[in-house]
Amino acid sequence: MDPYPPVLRRCLEELQKLPGIGPRSAQRILFHLLSRGGAGGLAEALSNLERDVERCPACRAYRNRGEECPLCDDPRRDPSLLCIVESPGEVYLVEATAEFRGLYHVLHGLLSPLRGVSPAALGLESLLRRIREREVEEVILATPPTAEGEATASYILEILKERVGKVSRIGFGLPVGSDLQYVDSQTLSRALTGRRDLMKAP
Amino acid sequence: MDPYPPVLRRCLEELQKLPGIGPRSAQRILFHLLSRGGAGGLAEALSNLERDVERCPACRAYRNRGEECPLCDDPRRDPSLLCIVESPGEVYLVEATAEFRGLYHVLHGLLSPLRGVSPAALGLESLLRRIREREVEEVILATPPTAEGEATASYILEILKERVGKVSRIGFGLPVGSDLQYVDSQTLSRALTGRRDLMKAP
Repeated sequence: MDPYPPVLRRCLEELQKLPGIGPRSAQRILFHLLSRGGAGGLAEALSNLERDVERCPACRAYRNRGEECPLCDDPRRDPSLLCIVESPGEVYLVEATAEFRGLYHVLHGLLSPLRGVSPAALGLESLLRRIREREVEEVILATPPTAEGEATASYILEILKERVGKVSRIGFGLPVGSDLQYVDSQTLSRALTGRRDLMKAP
Repeated sequence: MDPYPPVLRRCLEELQKLPGIGPRSAQRILFHLLSRGGAGGLAEALSNLERDVERCPACRAYRNRGEECPLCDDPRRDPSLLCIVESPGEVYLVEATAEFRGLYHVLHGLLSPLRGVSPAALGLESLLRRIREREVEEVILATPPTAEGEATASYILEILKERVGKVSRIGFGLPVGSDLQYVDSQTLSRALTGRRDLMKAP
């Protein structure tokens, strides 16, 4: 006989579907909710999620359904600069750096003939439409430094090079705080080819 | 302007209240739910939690409201053996060992004059009632090896020693797979005093 009452077992199963949550973490979360409360607030926040959120038709990141996009509709952002990322989570990682004040295009995937992801899935038509309509001067390709990320970046570069003044790729090299000894040779090789002339004005 | 739409911000805040979930994990969970779905199922499981669960009046672990206790009402369990634990989560940790087939008493706390936890909060009257009514032969004190855990165990021992044939304390010593070199001296000291005579029949 399962020592957990069914209502707890059900919660544990749902919690364990989350990334990074194993049986022990699920248990810890469950008993935290039972002893401190807060299950109701979390349940409510989550139950509204699917109903209340939608992709922004322009950047394809998320917005409250039918409301303004907090990114595209922010007048303080620079519409001449566009950053292309694989998934919506990366938009907020870039935002957290406070290094970029342009707009985004979320691919929601990378080109992958094996997994059947074709250019049509990446929303490139709407990207081209935006580039035509708003005066985009630079597109930053921020797909990851993996085979699929590179292939996707090359494909988009081909499409854009006649249409945009500048297409750039985010920098690759040593992560800040890392030690040369522990960095793999591909990263070190990228760090060397991507070296920066310190005598030149920034 | 917050780059997150309000509905996502609210979810992130609720997720970050969970133990072990920081901003990065909350983000990872949120985007997992958005891209793979499952927020509805989790929301439903959690929203039923507070309504559908209650403490079993006998063992004080959890049961579905108004239903049988999966522990106390399991006829295959041995009611002559009772294990006392600090919190409900520990019931299921003990269950996971498959080493114990008796019943439980959950204290929901440890004695702590500083934090104002007095014996009344630990449900000891109902424990004494159970001991009188059902023939309990052994009580295992499984409170943790901390100052409060030890004080609580001593207090309960004082109450029980005239009323139960055997009161035992769970064993302390080296964790399985550990190395003597990395074990603190208090644990090693407990391992020595808690040594087992290998010549004696188990």
